[in-house]
Amino acid sequence: MVPDQKEVSNGTERRIKVAEILVPDEAKTSSRIMIFLKAFIVGLASKVWKLLHKAWDIGVDDPRKVIHCLKVGIAVTVVSLFYYVYPLYDAFGEEDAIWAIMTVVVVFENTVGGTVSKCLNRIGGTLLAGLLAMGIQWVASIHWVASKSGNKTIELIINGVAVFLLASLATFSRFLPSVKARFDYGAMIFILTFSLVSVSGYHPENNDAANNRISTILIGTVLCIIISIFVFPIWAGQDLHALIFCNIDKLADSLEGYVAEYFKDGDDLDDGDKECHKKLQGYKSVLSSKATEDSLANFARWEPGHGRFKFRHPWKQYIKVGESMRSCAHCIDALINGCINSENHASEYLKKHISNICMKVSSYSSDVIRELALTIKTMKKSSDIHILVGDMNDVAQVLQVKLKVLPYLFIPPSKPEAAETPESKTTEQQPASKTVVTIMPIMGIIPLVTSTSLLIEIVTRINGIVDAVEELADLAGFKPASNEKCGKDDQLNNNFLPDQEKGKDNIKVFPLPPV
Amino acid sequence: MVPDQKEVSNGTERRIKVAEILVPDEAKTSSRIMIFLKAFIVGLASKVWKLLHKAWDIGVDDPRKVIHCLKVGIAVTVVSLFYYVYPLYDAFGEEDAIWAIMTVVVVFENTVGGTVSKCLNRIGGTLLAGLLAMGIQWVASIHWVASKSGNKTIELIINGVAVFLLASLATFSRFLPSVKARFDYGAMIFILTFSLVSVSGYHPENNDAANNRISTILIGTVLCIIISIFVFPIWAGQDLHALIFCNIDKLADSLEGYVAEYFKDGDDLDDGDKECHKKLQGYKSVLSSKATEDSLANFARWEPGHGRFKFRHPWKQYIKVGESMRSCAHCIDALINGCINSENHASEYLKKHISNICMKVSSYSSDVIRELALTIKTMKKSSDIHILVGDMNDVAQVLQVKLKVLPYLFIPPSKPEAAETPESKTTEQQPASKTVVTIMPIMGIIPLVTSTSLLIEIVTRINGIVDAVEELADLAGFKPASNEKCGKDDQLNNNFLPDQEKGKDNIKVFPLPPV
Repeated sequence: MVPDQKEVSNGTERRIKVAEILVPDEAKTSSRIMIFLKAFIVGLASKVWKLLHKAWDIGVDDPRKVIHCLKVGIAVTVVSLFYYVYPLYDAFGEEDAIWAIMTVVVVFENTVGGTVSKCLNRIGGTLLAGLLAMGIQWVASIHWVASKSGNKTIELIINGVAVFLLASLATFSRFLPSVKARFDYGAMIFILTFSLVSVSGYHPENNDAANNRISTILIGTVLCIIISIFVFPIWAGQDLHALIFCNIDKLADSLEGYVAEYFKDGDDLDDGDKECHKKLQGYKSVLSSKATEDSLANFARWEPGHGRFKFRHPWKQYIKVGESMRSCAHCIDALINGCINSENHASEYLKKHISNICMKVSSYSSDVIRELALTIKTMKKSSDIHILVGDMNDVAQVLQVKLKVLPYLFIPPSKPEAAETPESKTTEQQPASKTVVTIMPIMGIIPLVTSTSLLIEIVTRINGIVDAVEELADLAGFKPASNEKCGKDDQLNNNFLPDQEKGKDNIKVFPLPPV
Repeated sequence: MVPDQKEVSNGTERRIKVAEILVPDEAKTSSRIMIFLKAFIVGLASKVWKLLHKAWDIGVDDPRKVIHCLKVGIAVTVVSLFYYVYPLYDAFGEEDAIWAIMTVVVVFENTVGGTVSKCLNRIGGTLLAGLLAMGIQWVASIHWVASKSGNKTIELIINGVAVFLLASLATFSRFLPSVKARFDYGAMIFILTFSLVSVSGYHPENNDAANNRISTILIGTVLCIIISIFVFPIWAGQDLHALIFCNIDKLADSLEGYVAEYFKDGDDLDDGDKECHKKLQGYKSVLSSKATEDSLANFARWEPGHGRFKFRHPWKQYIKVGESMRSCAHCIDALINGCINSENHASEYLKKHISNICMKVSSYSSDVIRELALTIKTMKKSSDIHILVGDMNDVAQVLQVKLKVLPYLFIPPSKPEAAETPESKTTEQQPASKTVVTIMPIMGIIPLVTSTSLLIEIVTRINGIVDAVEELADLAGFKPASNEKCGKDDQLNNNFLPDQEKGKDNIKVFPLPPV
């Protein structure tokens, strides 16, 4: 049965037609796919590029982060030797060598304090849970030996109930604030180890596993602690210390900058305005750094002595300094957003009468803040701080007085008027002119009164920072600044101290202009 | 050799003497030990008692925490069945069943969002790392097959370098803010799994371990997700929602309470003063809840739709509402600590002239704030909010006007004096009396000016909260409050809207008394 010529040629034609119809469609589809792929690749590439750019910025901004990553890489690679090298592998076996790798990956934190805290939590949680689980197993096994029926039901029930109760209790302990702050990870490891040991003990053939596990965990933690302390260590304490004095400095920049901008003559914007604006916004980083301070202080308590810091450095006091800074920053925020950035500037004429003293207050306050930053930075008690605080409080009191005197300044223009008015003028006219002259300028003072009152409140809160920093200096045993300065100045300071302290108390009792 | 009688009696005497000397000492020591033990036990018992008391308080305060603990207990016990029940144990083996227990312990979080986020991170990280590690092993094994010398050096080097590079890179990725916020745990699991798979693959006899591991991890995560969603679920989204509207309510309590206390007549302390004081301090919890809000919002994004919340509920907007609340709380803090708690109260006489309007502003503001809290709580657009905001802004403008008029109020007492003065009086005396009469009361206004200016600034910031909540209502598609109310009131509102909005803008342009 040979197909005739026509059919064959028909078939061929059809195939050619089909091909003709298909080809353009396929071409279209493929070109569409090409376009889609191109767009996808370009989009992906631009995203990856952005991500790389960001990563580069992070690396350049803080090269210690790159070093930390390399340290983690080294630690994980070193601990992998347990697998790669056969003698070690044979000694521990796979299921135990896992624990060394896991320990390193889970425990290695950015800071020494974080790493040490997690290591000690892991070791403590593991040991406690291991011992407890073995004790309970021993009790369970006595019952089992007693029944000796080969039926492990009692052991199973005891183990199950113990796991349930202890897992629940340990989970609840993580809600206690004292546990949450320092032993959260330890509680988790406790649950993990307790369940693992108590169930693995149920299969007696794996009984030596627990010992190997603890020894591999010890190897992992020791490796982490050694690498994190001795290879380019990143100390949480040092970071906290730096964070605090940088933030104090930022407060000074913001306060001085904004007050100067408020009282300066023109509204001329410089080229470096963006840079300047960023500097002025520094107080915002004080407002938002509470969480960082808390976690750094928590980690710092686990760190051994390093650099200028002893083992029991008063890290908690840094949190108090941070709190006092934040309280001051709230007030600066109210000043800046409520008065300075508001649309209702006092007129230049009114400002000028008070600008000098306000600038002085802000500049003296900034000096005090910067001296505090220096005190913390150098860890040396400043010999000038009491003088500076006294000056600041004095100037603040002068501002209070000036605030009271301000209305008098606007009387004089009425005086000559009153003097010029001949006695023949009616008495009815006089009160009218009096109200116009004396009250109109007072209206204009209102924004100035608000901002100066806040400025005086800021001075009060700066005194709070001074107190917190002095307590820190006492607790940490900061030494006096320098010997040659100390010799005379310290005596001078001691002579000045009571007065200055009195002055400080005065300003505290009258933080706002007295009625 | 028998010892003579004397020696024996001597020895006995000596022994008796020794016993005489020893007995009192032993008694002393044992009594000391008893005292020490007693003190230790009492101290320990009191500490344990305190801890239990605290734990009880936490449990009573939020019973959901107790339920969470029981849930963890159940999950860990259930997953332990892998060990206890032999068929399951035989199917997976010890080293893999470990992974199920570990997954449950590590992954089970308080909220559904936290659990889901960790589960998905764990699965994603494990799969990605497993596939990548197997791919690299395949490449390494080709080399190994090529060399075929039995020397695994090349494979070892490739594996080691890959572990080092990927551990470093993955650690670095955890510093990227976008990864840090959502995939931090996934990156850690990636490092862990990659190292484990790439080194365990080096011992081909354990090759099926990877599959078992992934299946046990899947079992663990599925168990966690089921228990956390279906057994008394704790939704992060719901918590965030409640936190926000509770905090808004607290702002209203603090603002209204403090302003009322400031302007009330006597300083009489009631019995319920402590309770009241606690209520007034509510704004502080707004200041300190940033971290909680951020983490809850982050977890809420992982949660499936639940209750009144859809899957893509605008959780990020809650953070913005929180920010605007905090900005308002800063200002309340400045008002309370700078003016109200300050020792320099304005005299009752001065206060009375402005107390009514100030109380009105604070009460209208509180009404607005409470209406916002209700809007969020009921998830229904309030039909009254625009009227309330308009009222608040109107009252705030009246306060501004009153602030301007305030000095006029103190002129009248000088008028009769001026009228009484006979023309025969010298002109020198007149200006002196004028300054005394007109300026002294103005001095007393200063604290009032500061506090009212801050009050007006607070009104501006409340407008900010209104904007944020309205954006939230739009994004989340809140429905109008109720139909019968809507019918007429909504139309009314629409008619009022432009004016009210204008009023709102007005108050924004003039947040502080104009000069």
